[in-house]
Amino acid sequence: MVEPNDEQSKPPPRRRLPRNGPVADDGIALSVRVRYFETDQMGIVHHANYPVWFEAARSEYCRVREIDYRGMEADGLALPVVALNVRYLSAAHYEDELYIRAKVVECRRSLLRIHYSVSRDEKTLATGETLQMLIERASGKARTFAPEIAERFLAPR
Amino acid sequence: MVEPNDEQSKPPPRRRLPRNGPVADDGIALSVRVRYFETDQMGIVHHANYPVWFEAARSEYCRVREIDYRGMEADGLALPVVALNVRYLSAAHYEDELYIRAKVVECRRSLLRIHYSVSRDEKTLATGETLQMLIERASGKARTFAPEIAERFLAPR
Amino acid sequence: MVEPNDEQSKPPPRRRLPRNGPVADDGIALSVRVRYFETDQMGIVHHANYPVWFEAARSEYCRVREIDYRGMEADGLALPVVALNVRYLSAAHYEDELYIRAKVVECRRSLLRIHYSVSRDEKTLATGETLQMLIERASGKARTFAPEIAERFLAPR
Amino acid sequence: MVEPNDEQSKPPPRRRLPRNGPVADDGIALSVRVRYFETDQMGIVHHANYPVWFEAARSEYCRVREIDYRGMEADGLALPVVALNVRYLSAAHYEDELYIRAKVVECRRSLLRIHYSVSRDEKTLATGETLQMLIERASGKARTFAPEIAERFLAPR
Repeated sequence: MVEPNDEQSKPPPRRRLPRNGPVADDGIALSVRVRYFETDQMGIVHHANYPVWFEAARSEYCRVREIDYRGMEADGLALPVVALNVRYLSAAHYEDELYIRAKVVECRRSLLRIHYSVSRDEKTLATGETLQMLIERASGKARTFAPEIAERFLAPR
Repeated sequence: MVEPNDEQSKPPPRRRLPRNGPVADDGIALSVRVRYFETDQMGIVHHANYPVWFEAARSEYCRVREIDYRGMEADGLALPVVALNVRYLSAAHYEDELYIRAKVVECRRSLLRIHYSVSRDEKTLATGETLQMLIERASGKARTFAPEIAERFLAPR
Repeated sequence: MVEPNDEQSKPPPRRRLPRNGPVADDGIALSVRVRYFETDQMGIVHHANYPVWFEAARSEYCRVREIDYRGMEADGLALPVVALNVRYLSAAHYEDELYIRAKVVECRRSLLRIHYSVSRDEKTLATGETLQMLIERASGKARTFAPEIAERFLAPR
Repeated sequence: MVEPNDEQSKPPPRRRLPRNGPVADDGIALSVRVRYFETDQMGIVHHANYPVWFEAARSEYCRVREIDYRGMEADGLALPVVALNVRYLSAAHYEDELYIRAKVVECRRSLLRIHYSVSRDEKTLATGETLQMLIERASGKARTFAPEIAERFLAPR
């Protein structure tokens, strides 16, 4: 389900979202409004901003599923990104209203793999993937996800 | 009036906003959710992110008043920031839901002065001011705001 | 007294760089000092900063080979990133002095493929790849690299 | 071949720096090369990057005076920015080589006040000031600078 609330003061018109993207329809769509700061002198959004949006969508995904990432950090764990892939299909521009969708596709042992898409109206502008590893911060050693956490990450919504 | 729609998938509970801040109540409040990227190793939001939020609130302010900044750029104008002040009163943290409020306090000749506040619940975390100058991009020369634009910037809402 | 070397005031000690990384030894190494802003609350450099460093190394690569990217933009061309991959092997920290190395591995027709590594002392912290496409900005259409430009991109140094 | 000078591979020509700026000549000049990421669609460096450069110059200032900021953090202290002012006089552009100069102008009790300038060749592009407060991280309470630290901050070089 998609709930397009956003960095703007009026609710955006309800829009259909791409039905066949790399992220299935039960994913979360985070709505972001492109900031001027995020543009570059090519007149488009600089490519380094997409991983930041992916992360914001990931946070939202956790929030909706009541996965307490702050609590995990407080318990001495961390979930650093160990791999990142982005494919840029079409440019985003200042003031565009974008939907960032995240979907966990794998969560086993210490690994968490998430797929993303960025879309504007019906159009997919970018897709991506991150791989994260659960570690104990003090030692840097890999840790296994608790089963109830893995379940929440993978549960359809 | 404040319409706290945001980077999150559920509408936040309606909250009272500070009544006596530097930004009067008819200003726009943009809601932002703090991104992990915006934190630093002190565990708080890095101070350089506030000007970016100010700008996002400024864009929203224009959008609500139907001031077409993209159109102004297309007409060869630009509105660079020539002065920035920020006072940081209390830290913001990851996942905080913040309200960024902007209010134009001066718009005459080529100058635009805006006040900002950043708040979480009832608490003001930061205040700020920007001064911008309307220029012709090609020449860099100051230009005077069209009266109807100045009026929109200054009109109560 | 003013010592205008880099993001540091004393020339760094000459260090051997990794000999068998993904970037051959004739690549350019750009030295960067990690900024506090680039850290996050995990206490490490946030992963979204690496593409920014890759780009800085790419710019340096062009500068050294006298490839005039600004001139290309002035001629109506652009070179947007269409794909990005990063592998994060080990964390970087505040004040670390890092070397970012770039090497063009492919430049044909409209595509430019570059490999990167990030190292501290002898250790590789991250590797990456970007794929860029030469386009005409106005139309968005793919353009072929001029042979003398392709040659400069690929020439050993 | 690797030439680890700065964000550029050749040592910059020694240049005279502005003699009458807000930062006296015994300050540190940090050299930065403008990154593409730092530009915006106005074609200039976005104003929110200047506080990041100020901070990098501040770090360099500490490094040169052997003020161990990381050690201070390890001791449970922090030095958050409580006020920031920037005046933007002239734009900076992609690939510009800039000098960022920092000078401590006040360090007493828990307060640290630093002045900055950004220059390109002989020209001052921006000036700024930060005010920081030494606090104990756990409690958030103000702490007084140790006399030997205050001395190092204020000592001419």
